[in-house]
Amino acid sequence: MPNPTAAMLVIGDEILSGRTRDANMHHLAGELSKAGIDLREVRVVSDDRGAIIAAVQALARAFDHVFTSGGIGPTHDDITADCIAAAFGVKIDVRADARALLEDHYAKSEIELNAARLRMARIPDGATLIENPVSAAPGFTLENVHVMAGVPSVFQAMVSSVLPGLTGGAPLISETLRIDRGEGDIAGPLGDLAAEFPDLSMGSYPFQKDGRFGSNIVVRGTDQAAVRSVIARLRATFAG
Amino acid sequence: MPNPTAAMLVIGDEILSGRTRDANMHHLAGELSKAGIDLREVRVVSDDRGAIIAAVQALARAFDHVFTSGGIGPTHDDITADCIAAAFGVKIDVRADARALLEDHYAKSEIELNAARLRMARIPDGATLIENPVSAAPGFTLENVHVMAGVPSVFQAMVSSVLPGLTGGAPLISETLRIDRGEGDIAGPLGDLAAEFPDLSMGSYPFQKDGRFGSNIVVRGTDQAAVRSVIARLRATFAG
Repeated sequence: MPNPTAAMLVIGDEILSGRTRDANMHHLAGELSKAGIDLREVRVVSDDRGAIIAAVQALARAFDHVFTSGGIGPTHDDITADCIAAAFGVKIDVRADARALLEDHYAKSEIELNAARLRMARIPDGATLIENPVSAAPGFTLENVHVMAGVPSVFQAMVSSVLPGLTGGAPLISETLRIDRGEGDIAGPLGDLAAEFPDLSMGSYPFQKDGRFGSNIVVRGTDQAAVRSVIARLRATFAG
Repeated sequence: MPNPTAAMLVIGDEILSGRTRDANMHHLAGELSKAGIDLREVRVVSDDRGAIIAAVQALARAFDHVFTSGGIGPTHDDITADCIAAAFGVKIDVRADARALLEDHYAKSEIELNAARLRMARIPDGATLIENPVSAAPGFTLENVHVMAGVPSVFQAMVSSVLPGLTGGAPLISETLRIDRGEGDIAGPLGDLAAEFPDLSMGSYPFQKDGRFGSNIVVRGTDQAAVRSVIARLRATFAG
């Protein structure tokens, strides 16, 4: 059975403006690889209602899972939860269980649960909550969309809350061989191997270091024996 | 006149698998901000012909410019140039001017211009070349799509080759104010200012450091006086 597929939707003007370098994509990509879920696409869109709704609908239709990051805090630019509700045509309001989590958290820290903070308890109808052990305000899963925070520590905690509940496939095995030759010398033999092993993915990632050319050849697939066999043949071809 | 809009398309299995952390997005975002071109969306897709063609067509229709990164090297997984040609329905073949660049480069470095390397001279009909001062193999611009390499040093050099030829708009001014209060306390006044200045974008990026909560408030726009005025009012509101 093929592995489940996934897409990620990063919501944030701060990444598109160049102010912040996204960190959540790389984290999620690594976790999904380990879980045997194939991340096929990532989109980054701005804090724009139309753009978010269109992206959620397109990705939710095309992939088994969609993971979103960003836009679920208390400020006016945090519009993700409302956009997800709109994308699925369901209502959204403050929900008792989410509100209770916030009341408990803010009572302990002696911070007022004001109107702005209460926005973080707005949950679309039919969603299940995603636990946030860092700062209490929950994420949620609606249909096949998992809605999580943008702050990296919270995002990572929420990914850890969500992934064990999903059915994964075979973990992706990845092995890398560094070859100290120009990519143009490697391309022929590598292309032949790629044609011979259509179930494996082979990538070449060139580098230039101290004036010498080389490339890291990465062979990926779910069949460990096949991956190792290709690496061994590449090593034999380019030895010496 | 509103600023021109742009999207970026990152082509690379290595980013989706979690092996590599993308660096080109952050670089391009910063350069476009300075040039007054609004980066509205980024997509990352795998080395898959159908996915690349669909993304190029969608983004080229929706935005003034599309910048791609990755997949223009000599190996079998480098299929970007062929996909761009297919997306616009034009032919692609080795082109004399691109071939001459490679012949010159490889003659100097005494490396054989073999069939694999010659693939890097495949240029879609009607494209103009993008200079690559790092490793000679050119990028190209076809219609409103600028096709560049994935290796960060080459990508950055190609961005420097392309941007001066594009018509930009007013550079985006961005000022940041750090407020050592929880986001939930900032949200009310910030939302009021956002409503009062609809031409500015205001974002709140919370952090937690040494057990204290705070947020970096970023105000962006093309009107420097307005940006400064909002920062001053925020500072007055949250002083002390």
